[in-house]
This record gives sequence, C-alpha cells and structure tokens, in this order.
Amino acid sequence: MAVHKNSIPIRRICIIGMGLIGGSLAKALKKSATCSEIIGCDSSQKRLDTALQLKAIDSGSTEVSIAVKDADVIILAAPIGAMTSVFESIVGHISPTTIITDVGSTKRSVVKAAQNIFDKLPNGFVPAHPLVGGEKSGVENSSAELFTGCNVVITPLDTSSKEAVEMVRQIWHSTGANVFELDVDRHDEILGATSHLPHVLAYLLVDILASSNKKDDIFRYAAGGFIDFTRIASSDPGLWCDISLANSDVLSSMLESYGEALSQLSRAISQGDKHEIK
Amino acid sequence: MAVHKNSIPIRRICIIGMGLIGGSLAKALKKSATCSEIIGCDSSQKRLDTALQLKAIDSGSTEVSIAVKDADVIILAAPIGAMTSVFESIVGHISPTTIITDVGSTKRSVVKAAQNIFDKLPNGFVPAHPLVGGEKSGVENSSAELFTGCNVVITPLDTSSKEAVEMVRQIWHSTGANVFELDVDRHDEILGATSHLPHVLAYLLVDILASSNKKDDIFRYAAGGFIDFTRIASSDPGLWCDISLANSDVLSSMLESYGEALSQLSRAISQGDKHEIK
Repeated sequence: MAVHKNSIPIRRICIIGMGLIGGSLAKALKKSATCSEIIGCDSSQKRLDTALQLKAIDSGSTEVSIAVKDADVIILAAPIGAMTSVFESIVGHISPTTIITDVGSTKRSVVKAAQNIFDKLPNGFVPAHPLVGGEKSGVENSSAELFTGCNVVITPLDTSSKEAVEMVRQIWHSTGANVFELDVDRHDEILGATSHLPHVLAYLLVDILASSNKKDDIFRYAAGGFIDFTRIASSDPGLWCDISLANSDVLSSMLESYGEALSQLSRAISQGDKHEIK
Repeated sequence: MAVHKNSIPIRRICIIGMGLIGGSLAKALKKSATCSEIIGCDSSQKRLDTALQLKAIDSGSTEVSIAVKDADVIILAAPIGAMTSVFESIVGHISPTTIITDVGSTKRSVVKAAQNIFDKLPNGFVPAHPLVGGEKSGVENSSAELFTGCNVVITPLDTSSKEAVEMVRQIWHSTGANVFELDVDRHDEILGATSHLPHVLAYLLVDILASSNKKDDIFRYAAGGFIDFTRIASSDPGLWCDISLANSDVLSSMLESYGEALSQLSRAISQGDKHEIK
C-alpha cells in the first residue's frame, strides 16, 4: 500500500514515548512528509539518542514541557500505565487547538486518565489504537513501514472536534494504515476478545507449563500448538499486565465466560461426550 | 539435515492410511530407499490413486488383508479413532516377525486398542509419534521432507523386541527426523501439555468468539493474538475431537488445573492485583 502525502499541513508533531510504536510512527510521518518537524520525548536520554541516530526525530527532550512546546499535534506513545502522569505533564502546555491522540491498546482507561486530569476534555483529543505490535519492542526495532496495510482504530469522543478527528485520521492514513472508527466501549470489547484474552490465555498456559516438573521435556518436545502460545506469550509481560488492568472489566467478564465454557468442555471430555466436544 | 540411507534392508512396507502423514512417510521412505516396495492401503480408492500418481507408493489396495500380505513392516497412519478397527483387520495377517508401528498423536489409546484385539501384544509392535502436522491435510499436500529435522517420539513397550525398536528407530531416522524415546504415559502427559491442551484452548476461544454477536467486528479487527489462535484452531476438528477423547484422562486433569489458574487470574484482574497478575 502506498504511503500517502498528508493534505493537511502540520508544522510540529511531538511524540511522547520512543518505543517501537513511537519510533516507527516518527519514521513513518517523516517518510510521508506529514509535518515539518518531529520532536521526540522520553524519560530515557539513551532512547532519544537512538531515535536521533536513526533520524526518526529532529530533536528530543526528556522534559515534556520542552518537547510539547508549540506542537500542533501531541501523540502519546507511552505505556498504558503511564498515561495519567503524561496527561498531568502536558496539561499546562497545550493550546485550545492542539491535537492530542495516543496509541494505547485500551481506550476507556486512556479516556478516564484524561478525565482525571483535564477539567474538561480538550476538543483536540481523539484517542487511537494502531493494531500492530508483536514480540519485538524498542525504538531500535522501529520501522517506517510498521503501519503499512495495518488497521488503526480511532475512537472519537463526544467532545472531539470534527477537525481534530479528520486530522488524526489523516495522520494515520499517511502512515499507510487503514483507518476505522469505533466508539470507545466497542473498541475495548472487540480488542478484549481478539487480543487481550488470547494473550492472557497464552501467558497462563506458558506460565503453568514453565513451572511444571515436566518442564524440560515440555520444552524439548514442544509441538505446534505450544510454540504458537509461547510466541504470543513472548511479548512484554509488563505491558500485558497494564493492559489487563486497564481493560479489567471487559477481560474479567470474558475470562468468566471462557472459564464456564472450559468447565463444560472438560466435563464433556472426561465423560467422552463426542457430540458435546464438537 | 541429510536423509540417511537405512542400514537394515527392508523388503516391503505397508502404510495404512494415505493422508498427509501416511503419504509423506511413503515419499520419504521411497526417497531414502529404506525398502524395496511400499504398499498403500486406504478405504478410499481416490486417495490411493492420488498416492500412486504422486509416486508415493508402488501399489495400493482398499483391502487391508491384501495390502499387508508379506509386509515386513506395517505402519498405521489411520486416524486415532480408527485404530481398533485397523488392528482388527490386520490381526490375522501378520507373522511373528512383522514390525508394527503407528503415527498416532496419543499413545495409551493406541496401546489399549491393540490390547483389545491381540491376545498378547506382538513383539514387533513399537508405537511412535512424529511431532509434525499443522493446518494442511491430505495426501495431495504430502512431502518427502515433512519429517526432516522434526522430532519423532517412539514409545517402546515391555513386550517390544530390541530388534523391532531398532528397526522403527531406523525407519524414522531415514526420513531425516530426530528420534527420541519416551514411555507411553510420559508421552501422553507431555503431548497433552504441549499440543492437545493448546489446541483445545484455541478451539474454545475461536468457538466462543465465532458465536458472539460481535462476530463481524471481531474478525474485522482480529489482532495478532487471535490470528495465532485461529491458525491453531484451523486444523481438522474431527482429528482433535478424537485426540481429546483418546487422551481424555490427561487432558481433563490439565483443563481442571488450567481452569483453576484462570479463576485465580480472573479474580486478580478484577481486583486490580498487579502483583498476582505478574
């Protein structure tokens, strides 16, 4: 899929969080000339230096107040668990026209974090979630092509201005992604089912087997199914712990349904009920 | 890995069941010149015709009694659920020196099926299980390289003769596989954990989500984790139903442990207990 040049001219974009997603987004926006300048922000000077070396960003700062200064667009690419403190650090440094978006895997938690910090949600705030990721992490693995052909869900709020929604849509479109709209609750339900639940199930299995007394043989004779589970479970556990907590309502209700279906299946298997198993 | 020429000369091998595994094994044994003649046996003449066209076998018959006649080695590559009837059909047609092995994913059930048919287990009987497979099936997808570098577990019985164990080991070695020995119970425990349980968990999730009222959106926004689950769950459901039943003792006890861990995790997530989740 071609990377499209953005039709809205943007002067300065600040990306907070220089991980795989933040770094890849910076590279993709640079490649598509979506803005004149990209400022990186991260608590780690080392990550900023890497992003600068990779020419992902034009300049960087560990200070949010400096990094977001005069930014037309602020993109929060920090971990889900850090969103409240990131909102806290930008609240005094934005104008009424600043566009704010994020890349978090859960959306209700991000909106709640913003609501806790802002008296009134800014009209420029449009949450988003690129459905990418995997086992790699870190700005050193970032790629301008990460979003090419991928789905990005944007979740406009009642408070979001039409202009801000359009701008966020075009920013993602310029990375080569397919952009869809969902409301916040629907997003968390769908992603809970297709991403958070499978990850939790895979982590749980790998965890149980890794602490089994048959561990050595299990890893020696790892067959197809288990290898897929270990791959799913090899993504960052801290990230997934945060996501589980951020989407805990949806996830715990899904885990409950799954647990019930599991008991039913377990009964069917031990009773040899072929019809029920199928 | 190189395919090794077998040091034991075998005249005639009969493979019962011309699916992906039976067909691939026939091709691999032909390529490594492990025997002079390979006879295929299948209830479907069409599958036999395909195997003949693919030059996987030298001749074929839908009649077990004809196919196994004068075979030095009989390899059962029929579905797990058909093992009893296959043993029944060979019982009158083997000599005391005939080597009998199989490729079933569970081993206790195969041994039990043999015990039900034979008054005394033949000394030539050495169960085996190549840890391969995947989403493809059918002799039309067979490949002489399917076992190259793969693990094959052989599970010698107390009744198995040393010569038979060595012959079965060399047959698999000649396909390019790495051959390991495990006892029958251990095999079923390990494979229950690394293969049967992941498949059951994946099937269950895909089944739940496919019958959800959010189904369309779930498949539209399918993220990484779910795609891996759908791939695991795309293997033959009939096969997996049979495997679940054949290894039901191990599997239902594992499902119970998994279910308990799941409830505990679900509680931790709904209570926001970060330490417990990790």
